[in-house]
Amino acid sequence: MATSFEELADSYACIFFDAFGVLKSSAGVFPGVVEVLSALQARGKQVFIVTNDASKSPHRMADGYQLNSNPVVPIENIISSGLLAEDYLRTKVRSGYVAYLGKEASAYYIVKAGLHPIALSEVVPDQHNPRCIVLLDDEGFDWFRDINRCVNLVRESNLPVIVANTDVTYPRTPTVFNVAVGGLARLLEAATGRNFIHFGKPDPMIFSKAFHIALENDRKLRKSDVLMVGDTLTTDIVGGNKYGIDTALVLSGTTLDSQHRGLIQATGIVPTYVCDSVLT
Amino acid sequence: MATSFEELADSYACIFFDAFGVLKSSAGVFPGVVEVLSALQARGKQVFIVTNDASKSPHRMADGYQLNSNPVVPIENIISSGLLAEDYLRTKVRSGYVAYLGKEASAYYIVKAGLHPIALSEVVPDQHNPRCIVLLDDEGFDWFRDINRCVNLVRESNLPVIVANTDVTYPRTPTVFNVAVGGLARLLEAATGRNFIHFGKPDPMIFSKAFHIALENDRKLRKSDVLMVGDTLTTDIVGGNKYGIDTALVLSGTTLDSQHRGLIQATGIVPTYVCDSVLT
Amino acid sequence: MATSFEELADSYACIFFDAFGVLKSSAGVFPGVVEVLSALQARGKQVFIVTNDASKSPHRMADGYQLNSNPVVPIENIISSGLLAEDYLRTKVRSGYVAYLGKEASAYYIVKAGLHPIALSEVVPDQHNPRCIVLLDDEGFDWFRDINRCVNLVRESNLPVIVANTDVTYPRTPTVFNVAVGGLARLLEAATGRNFIHFGKPDPMIFSKAFHIALENDRKLRKSDVLMVGDTLTTDIVGGNKYGIDTALVLSGTTLDSQHRGLIQATGIVPTYVCDSVLT
Amino acid sequence: MATSFEELADSYACIFFDAFGVLKSSAGVFPGVVEVLSALQARGKQVFIVTNDASKSPHRMADGYQLNSNPVVPIENIISSGLLAEDYLRTKVRSGYVAYLGKEASAYYIVKAGLHPIALSEVVPDQHNPRCIVLLDDEGFDWFRDINRCVNLVRESNLPVIVANTDVTYPRTPTVFNVAVGGLARLLEAATGRNFIHFGKPDPMIFSKAFHIALENDRKLRKSDVLMVGDTLTTDIVGGNKYGIDTALVLSGTTLDSQHRGLIQATGIVPTYVCDSVLT
Repeated sequence: MATSFEELADSYACIFFDAFGVLKSSAGVFPGVVEVLSALQARGKQVFIVTNDASKSPHRMADGYQLNSNPVVPIENIISSGLLAEDYLRTKVRSGYVAYLGKEASAYYIVKAGLHPIALSEVVPDQHNPRCIVLLDDEGFDWFRDINRCVNLVRESNLPVIVANTDVTYPRTPTVFNVAVGGLARLLEAATGRNFIHFGKPDPMIFSKAFHIALENDRKLRKSDVLMVGDTLTTDIVGGNKYGIDTALVLSGTTLDSQHRGLIQATGIVPTYVCDSVLT
Repeated sequence: MATSFEELADSYACIFFDAFGVLKSSAGVFPGVVEVLSALQARGKQVFIVTNDASKSPHRMADGYQLNSNPVVPIENIISSGLLAEDYLRTKVRSGYVAYLGKEASAYYIVKAGLHPIALSEVVPDQHNPRCIVLLDDEGFDWFRDINRCVNLVRESNLPVIVANTDVTYPRTPTVFNVAVGGLARLLEAATGRNFIHFGKPDPMIFSKAFHIALENDRKLRKSDVLMVGDTLTTDIVGGNKYGIDTALVLSGTTLDSQHRGLIQATGIVPTYVCDSVLT
Repeated sequence: MATSFEELADSYACIFFDAFGVLKSSAGVFPGVVEVLSALQARGKQVFIVTNDASKSPHRMADGYQLNSNPVVPIENIISSGLLAEDYLRTKVRSGYVAYLGKEASAYYIVKAGLHPIALSEVVPDQHNPRCIVLLDDEGFDWFRDINRCVNLVRESNLPVIVANTDVTYPRTPTVFNVAVGGLARLLEAATGRNFIHFGKPDPMIFSKAFHIALENDRKLRKSDVLMVGDTLTTDIVGGNKYGIDTALVLSGTTLDSQHRGLIQATGIVPTYVCDSVLT
Repeated sequence: MATSFEELADSYACIFFDAFGVLKSSAGVFPGVVEVLSALQARGKQVFIVTNDASKSPHRMADGYQLNSNPVVPIENIISSGLLAEDYLRTKVRSGYVAYLGKEASAYYIVKAGLHPIALSEVVPDQHNPRCIVLLDDEGFDWFRDINRCVNLVRESNLPVIVANTDVTYPRTPTVFNVAVGGLARLLEAATGRNFIHFGKPDPMIFSKAFHIALENDRKLRKSDVLMVGDTLTTDIVGGNKYGIDTALVLSGTTLDSQHRGLIQATGIVPTYVCDSVLT
């Protein structure tokens, strides 16, 4: 019943892959995936990773996909939601301190935008006068202390709050889920009455960024030449559909084989194709 | 322009007071309040405290309102949202372990319902087999560890989750707000896709519980004899209005004098009266 | 696997029934239902109908349940969400015009509260000066004209808006659903930025009203003596659970046998019992 | 206090204008606006209209802005939310019937995408087998009949539903608001439990479409060269901010001078500039 991914890929000049549940799990990259990515590029196809993640830099993400110690995905083809936050900081904030929640590694995106990161717990309002707050990762800070500090910092100011990953939860192990920074954003929005600025799938900006990079490489590329491959209907598939590209749901991640028909029916989110995995 | 609370009170046989922002702040009971409560009862009026709070027992709440070392509000007239959770546990759960988030003092309501409290962090699922989860207080546990544990406990089970205080934030000091346990409930609902069972204003059950206790004391009492006094439109006033009793907004708490007209216009939540405070 | 309703009923002194999907469908009362209701009362049990409906008076609802031309449910035991709206109008509004959306028959509840109904389309603001707006039924008015009029009447005023039936849809035939007045309320709330006052299940006030009438008849009745029987998890069952009474899900209405386990798992709303129907 | 728009415009190579409340009202284009638009282009600036509207074609929108019978805004610079829906239909649907709600003129976008429009009221499911449903305009159909038909068509199928204008209301006259098709979408989503695909501000796709057309004309254009001018914080300003361009709030439409400071504080949506109007 499911479509063979290998055959399907033949019809597209450019393929966007979600990372978690598609190319890797919490235990690492799935065996065989780097070979698949490498073969697709050998056949002349552009390969992108389009991922809701702001916990580390694209370079460190790329390190996960190596064949004979060489990365198989070009660094500029790894499009994280953190990169969109970086673009926002560069074009809209431009200078000064940016307060953040997350591990120190996630502050990469603030530095890259030419700004000064400061952990939210270390902000002295009058001294640092932060220009905005960025929610990058769910780890690296004391939740009780810093979520409450964030509530008060937002209440007392007009600071925009940027959410660099909209996901509410993520799989920490195949069976254990953790609240992601996008979940903390929901709590903070309820507690402050504000609407924050969210980056990441299903919002189409992340697909637009990937598509326009692909277009630089191939000026004849059209949306109909692009396939988005993901394991989650409510982010990968609905977002790809809205952006106007074809979508393939794989059953190697959060959406189980036994559930997918029911979920498609209940949500009305219909992928163009369903594949068992990218290895089939 | 504002109505005198003293004159207004003359027209009612029974008065429900919110606690925070009406009778007290984080610094303690407002000077003069115990005298007001005492005088109302001397004039034959029933006085109730109707409060979204499950962090401590009604006895400990009553201790705050003393005149010459005597409590001025009868213990059975202190109606906390924790009491509604206690009623639920007694009538719907009946026996066994109940997992909770909160300080040990808040577990009072579980014990009072005849059940065995166990901190969520100490639950061994197969051993304790908890019958439900109760969210009682925002303190007394490690947020990162226990919120994530709670997400997974709910995902893996059908356990009902009881929220014993619906408030999203509370004033820790006059200028600093903390996330209340009702705010954590929002995060947990988003992360699990479940709807929990919430107790507290504006839901009318808490007013119904107070009214029926008042009715035991005075079989002729009608809803039109009751006044709800509160500082928050979206809990005290809208809930009292819906329950069918008169409402007085006081400007001694979260709703500032400068804001109240705009907020009434924007929300369409209209109190029967507006008073400066219960001391005027 | 399912419990026999007949045996189950033996354990309760008082039974609350939802109407649609439990006792009747759009085609009329299910064959055998009036005999069941009659037999329960012959065995000394109190029987109530607890229904989200404000389209007609309790008398007209009672007419549907007749044995040998006699109504089998006492009129005072038919608790509609319209009755709660009537209570609100009587205690909170007290006099003057009330603008309504619905058929003329639904204006019964306004008249009964001692107020003057006026169809929303006929309101001349300065002349009638309506005291509130009540949403009673989805029929009896021109949607385009009157929904838009309602938006503007609410925007220009502080009028409270009462929603006398919270349901979003209802089955017009076994396979065709219509938008109910509670669905129109959602649209009007989005268009005006206001939160209206909603009456009906799952809100506990309707259960409280029925319970206190039952208590008048039997002063020893406790919540544990009451069973709520319904076909919908998100109204009948979650509301009964929250009110602290036992609940039985029947599979004769909106929740199909094939779905109920999945829905209970997904929502975390767990009925005390599951029965095929009230006839088994 | 407010910035002069004329001076402000000097700093930008490309200006995006919202239509309603910025360039025009329900009574027509504001006097002086066509001269402003013409002068900006004479000074070498690109001018775009970026509007949530799918009720008519860009050509008919352009007809409103004429100087000496010549349109002052190039047709390809009028970016309506209807155009995004057209793109979706062309790339994702490709052939067959498309059911729509709206006036016949709004079906333009379906025809332009190479598909066959059919009014939702005329759909015979087995015969037309529509590929999707598009919500285009609030007029041109019987709300009661067709909203209920739409509910049932969606319930019985997997059809994607496209909302070609996300606005909930629009000003029909300066003082009278009507529910827009985006408001009907909210009702339909609540009644069907589905999430539809929405096009229009604040979603960044509409800004992305305008920016990439501008980029075709000027390959050196950067986001920092673009200014979005709008009268609504929650669509124009928050969307422009998120897309990474500068934003100017004008006080000639829905946001009144007396409100704008309070609204900016309450929402945390901060425009780069505030101007009285585009005429100052």
